[in-house]
Amino acid sequence: MTLTLSDIQAAHDRIKPYIIETPVLRLYNLEEILGCEVYVKLENMQRTKAFKLRGVMNTLLQLTDEELNRGVVTSSSGNHGHAVAYAANMLGIKATVAVPNTAPPFKLQKIKDYGAEIIPTTVEERFKLQDSLVKEHGYTLIPPFNDYRIMAGQGTVGLEILNQLPDVDRIFVPASGGGLVAGIAAAVKESSKNVIVHGVEPGNLPKFATSLKNNKITQVENKGTIADGLVSIVPGEKNFPLVQKYVDSFYTVSDEAMKKGQKFLLMEAKILAEISSSIAVGGILNGEIDVNPEDKVCFVITGGNLGFDQLEYIKDTEI
Amino acid sequence: MTLTLSDIQAAHDRIKPYIIETPVLRLYNLEEILGCEVYVKLENMQRTKAFKLRGVMNTLLQLTDEELNRGVVTSSSGNHGHAVAYAANMLGIKATVAVPNTAPPFKLQKIKDYGAEIIPTTVEERFKLQDSLVKEHGYTLIPPFNDYRIMAGQGTVGLEILNQLPDVDRIFVPASGGGLVAGIAAAVKESSKNVIVHGVEPGNLPKFATSLKNNKITQVENKGTIADGLVSIVPGEKNFPLVQKYVDSFYTVSDEAMKKGQKFLLMEAKILAEISSSIAVGGILNGEIDVNPEDKVCFVITGGNLGFDQLEYIKDTEI
Repeated sequence: MTLTLSDIQAAHDRIKPYIIETPVLRLYNLEEILGCEVYVKLENMQRTKAFKLRGVMNTLLQLTDEELNRGVVTSSSGNHGHAVAYAANMLGIKATVAVPNTAPPFKLQKIKDYGAEIIPTTVEERFKLQDSLVKEHGYTLIPPFNDYRIMAGQGTVGLEILNQLPDVDRIFVPASGGGLVAGIAAAVKESSKNVIVHGVEPGNLPKFATSLKNNKITQVENKGTIADGLVSIVPGEKNFPLVQKYVDSFYTVSDEAMKKGQKFLLMEAKILAEISSSIAVGGILNGEIDVNPEDKVCFVITGGNLGFDQLEYIKDTEI
Repeated sequence: MTLTLSDIQAAHDRIKPYIIETPVLRLYNLEEILGCEVYVKLENMQRTKAFKLRGVMNTLLQLTDEELNRGVVTSSSGNHGHAVAYAANMLGIKATVAVPNTAPPFKLQKIKDYGAEIIPTTVEERFKLQDSLVKEHGYTLIPPFNDYRIMAGQGTVGLEILNQLPDVDRIFVPASGGGLVAGIAAAVKESSKNVIVHGVEPGNLPKFATSLKNNKITQVENKGTIADGLVSIVPGEKNFPLVQKYVDSFYTVSDEAMKKGQKFLLMEAKILAEISSSIAVGGILNGEIDVNPEDKVCFVITGGNLGFDQLEYIKDTEI
């Protein structure tokens, strides 16, 4: 099994009633400084404020009635956990989320607000706990990225970009496990060979850059990153071959550049994006990624989930 | 002389090469809480990050070559001052801005960055200084709102809304001297009688509500407001008759509601708006303005000029 354009098109038809077709905006005010035509795909305006709902919804809508009746489980306190809780609530089924005790309270509150059951655990124990919940209760596990249904759902972002901005030249996609970048790249490259798709990952966690260089999946040392949405240390098994096939190239970007990108988007474009979503804009701003003045460049703003207090970390960032 | 639809259409043709046709976005994520279909006209994404450029540019483009050669003057450290400095720079002419010594440094810096000469003064002396500069140097005074060319320029926001959202039901417009609300209302009502236009002003400075009730221009006591873009204590002489003729009704909104509106737009819609621009959203959120679930409501987000430090004042605001 793999991922085809028609899988992604089918996913789009399936999830359309449940998601927002988020806008693509041209940001003229950023163009002189970034040195290209600047467009953003605003998944921070998606329901649950992140693209994750697309893949989750595409997965849930393919479960059998029996599976739906038993309920679903995952182990993320971040955007994926929010999406599972929200989607389950929308479909009237039970969701259980195993949450590491390091998660900030505002993230837990969101999951509770969407009506999911939270089971506290540790970072180390969470996957074991999740698997035992699957065995004990018959819950269906909803994985964050290493799954073709998830990738097909995330790939719908690519279909929408091509529809909203048919003459796009380049698309920059933040990457963690590789669900979004594989999905978008498959959707785009199977539709138009001329559009260039770049993945972007933290310089501290260059798992795709390293794996692509080694021509095999390679786990990198966990040096940590400020980008709380981009913490994977190894590409997904199912994601990597698709990234190899479809993504043109990968960039790595420093934490400092991401902070600059986030503050620049907020102050100059008036858009609040997660630090993970600011990685490519920050990379260009900080001279870590090159673009051409004649290029129409689309940045996928993957999410906007952050607490007001988190703005503190860009207080002294100079742009 | 007055303001006609064709003046506004001519203004639009005139200024189009110099401004951004800012987007109208539907904000689905706000609809359950606000209780209507929510659209925003994002003038915080305009060049200079506020609608003010429209009126200023429409005025400058109608000056004679001799007037342009002598230069222009105004006395605002806010969005109007920025717009005059930026527009003059764009047209290659000299601009002088008389700035009260109470203005925050980041606002002065912007005016300097656009290449205008700054002359420091006091709040009390600034209009006298501005008039003496006109006499001494032959500068042309660019007024902030009490002027038909200014109103025609601001009215182009209304033309764009009708074009981008033809089935809009209601438009909420923040009001200070009345340049924007008069311009938009004239443009909208001369195009379609069915669209309702509301003005919104600070509860502490109800100059339009009071003047409309008294059926004559009435100055109100200066009780101050947190909305630094809405500080006028009396409607403009040329603005008031147009407001009487075209605006359906005025709402007054508390400072507390505006803070809620600003934080709500930032955290829930991911849009950074000035506190002045958040007045109508805040009014609904705080129960000070009523809307209907079936209404398509467009909020004019007039600007986004604020320093990062200014976010401090909504730190503890609960939404």
